[in-house]
Amino acid sequence: MKEEQKIFLIILDGLGDRPIDSFTGQTPLEAARTPVLNLLAEKGTLGLIDVEGVGVRPGSDTSYLSLLGYDPKEYYFGRGPFEALGAGINMNPGDVAFRVNFATLDKKGKVADRRAGRIEKCNELAKALEKIKSEVKFSIKATREHRGALVFKGKGISPNITTNDSKNTGVKPLEIKPTDETPEAKNTASIANDFLSQANKLLDKHPENKKRQKNKLQPANYLLLRGAGSYHPLPSIKERYGLTSATIAGDSLYKGIAIATGMDVVEVRGATGAGDTNLLAKTLTAKNTLLTHDFVVLHIKGTDDFGHDGDAMGKKAFIERVDAALTELANIDNTIIALTGDHSTPCALKNHSGDAVPLLINGRGVRVDSIQKFGERDAAKGGMGRIRGLDLMPELLNLAGRAKMYGT
Amino acid sequence: MKEEQKIFLIILDGLGDRPIDSFTGQTPLEAARTPVLNLLAEKGTLGLIDVEGVGVRPGSDTSYLSLLGYDPKEYYFGRGPFEALGAGINMNPGDVAFRVNFATLDKKGKVADRRAGRIEKCNELAKALEKIKSEVKFSIKATREHRGALVFKGKGISPNITTNDSKNTGVKPLEIKPTDETPEAKNTASIANDFLSQANKLLDKHPENKKRQKNKLQPANYLLLRGAGSYHPLPSIKERYGLTSATIAGDSLYKGIAIATGMDVVEVRGATGAGDTNLLAKTLTAKNTLLTHDFVVLHIKGTDDFGHDGDAMGKKAFIERVDAALTELANIDNTIIALTGDHSTPCALKNHSGDAVPLLINGRGVRVDSIQKFGERDAAKGGMGRIRGLDLMPELLNLAGRAKMYGT
Repeated sequence: MKEEQKIFLIILDGLGDRPIDSFTGQTPLEAARTPVLNLLAEKGTLGLIDVEGVGVRPGSDTSYLSLLGYDPKEYYFGRGPFEALGAGINMNPGDVAFRVNFATLDKKGKVADRRAGRIEKCNELAKALEKIKSEVKFSIKATREHRGALVFKGKGISPNITTNDSKNTGVKPLEIKPTDETPEAKNTASIANDFLSQANKLLDKHPENKKRQKNKLQPANYLLLRGAGSYHPLPSIKERYGLTSATIAGDSLYKGIAIATGMDVVEVRGATGAGDTNLLAKTLTAKNTLLTHDFVVLHIKGTDDFGHDGDAMGKKAFIERVDAALTELANIDNTIIALTGDHSTPCALKNHSGDAVPLLINGRGVRVDSIQKFGERDAAKGGMGRIRGLDLMPELLNLAGRAKMYGT
Repeated sequence: MKEEQKIFLIILDGLGDRPIDSFTGQTPLEAARTPVLNLLAEKGTLGLIDVEGVGVRPGSDTSYLSLLGYDPKEYYFGRGPFEALGAGINMNPGDVAFRVNFATLDKKGKVADRRAGRIEKCNELAKALEKIKSEVKFSIKATREHRGALVFKGKGISPNITTNDSKNTGVKPLEIKPTDETPEAKNTASIANDFLSQANKLLDKHPENKKRQKNKLQPANYLLLRGAGSYHPLPSIKERYGLTSATIAGDSLYKGIAIATGMDVVEVRGATGAGDTNLLAKTLTAKNTLLTHDFVVLHIKGTDDFGHDGDAMGKKAFIERVDAALTELANIDNTIIALTGDHSTPCALKNHSGDAVPLLINGRGVRVDSIQKFGERDAAKGGMGRIRGLDLMPELLNLAGRAKMYGT
């Protein structure tokens, strides 16, 4: 018998939910028909995870770090750097990164749409912005839809500046200001304001935007900068756990965290990071990747999107699609499989909540418990009890026979 | 009614396990016939302990400290000092101690057996080593079988040196080297290498070894030094909890931790620290010791040995013997009884794992739960839930009516 097992971690973003009246008080997960998950549950053990602590409402970035065993108190430096890495921008320590929304500014200079009419892609627009004349080197890339990332490179800059995004429409964007008295922060605020003004001018006259306006679509003629953060390298998964590792994810944030932690990013055709993603392709790719890597993380975003939209029926149906795509897991040997959420996104709230997320662990050596169905309240009765986000990796390493001894 | 109760903590080393096919998926504890433990469970409450945290794989030393309420992050300074105290060597702060294996070096200077053919005792051999001429004062004692402890005494020495034990046979022992640049570490490495070389010469010509070789047994002609640590006194159990206390244990590590924490060590004839130990004598002695002490710890090693040997049947049978020996507990009054493991030693792994250990607490005032059998998965459903190693002593003090108030 091989002592060491592989680890396959499946994260359904925003999986956890609350009772829904139209489901006779069941959650979307509880209401969903999930024969594969139930089989895994029957032959596995269940529990609940408080990803950042009991009742703490996690962000997407912090919760993902915690599930990988990186305490965000130590390793979280803002979302921007992870988005930028995920967008394919190389970074050096000290570079300052932002997540970017391509947005619409109306003729009065007010924000008309924070997502530029949910534009499909902004690659050409981002390219046009390379002409901006700035006193720092910079890099800007579009990712999916209206999203992208911007990095200011070099020395003498600081992430300690405010955002220009008021999160409202019909108002002028905010002026970016330093949040401390350092020359670096003042300098960066000034660089950012100048960058935004030049970007607005370049984007306004860009042919793609002219065409959009002709077609009565909102032009993507402005940038909203959020999640400013200074990049610092993280210790790698290999250094921390001795594992070769890979991530399969559609969304740039999760790719970025993978890159920051030295994981391979395996691209999957049709992995969109949204509800229309190619689930079967992702699952099959994950299974293949387990042949060459010790630790594979499969991130599925759709559950979260349906939660944010308050679409309980959609969330339930998506979970059923995930269940079907996981059929292939039945014949994975020598692998500890864990499936959980990074946080709850209750449809009733349309936002992240601090409700604990259900956890399912299956594989050789697991103390199989008596719970036969995967759902929030079934999981609460499971043999794993209630653990924290940072406990997950130690538990998986332990079950996989890969934990180092503390003491002798 | 007397408010304060006594506390009787029984630690079955390596008790926790994983499902075993030949036991139809039960663990050795679950498969064992344990009427006494089940009666204690029925009238008590159960739970799980993550001794060093969820999934963390505990050593024997760190886990024992945690169960006594001493955070190893603060109080663990290597295994050597505890082994030396347990072997009966007096220590002063700063003394550097090692655990010792008497081993066999072949004629080519290679390690032939790390345990010298599992020699029965080395007391005379250890005595012969007192003739070694070293520039520091030292003390060496044999404990059970091939085991012992060595202490370098005085100033100008450091525990920051490597071991000579590669854990392999058929290779030369490693040269001991300093792990930092201090003169103390360099000095200690040099002292240790010289000590080992002299020990080899003295042991080689010792009559006991001559006799062993004549009888085709491996001579115990070399020392492997491990677990280097510098001794520092710990706050006593009396200081921390206000309890008079005693330990009953066969193995020198647990006696050493008892001495370090100011507990009385009660010797029991036939307590071997192994599977052949006199369980009834240990239990009866513990019961008597409760007449004179507030807090008694009974440590039973055998469960761990069977786990390390991968002997599930042996582990199950040993647990049944423990159960029988605990019959006497039925009529202990005014005592909170807690029984748990210091870690899991699953037979399938033949080593410590980070799986949670089952906990049973019985005594006046305990919130008796509905669980009627003592086993890993029954414990997971118990009223105590899932706690950490450092939580155990506060809970026992609380139930015994001996906890100090935090605030007013």
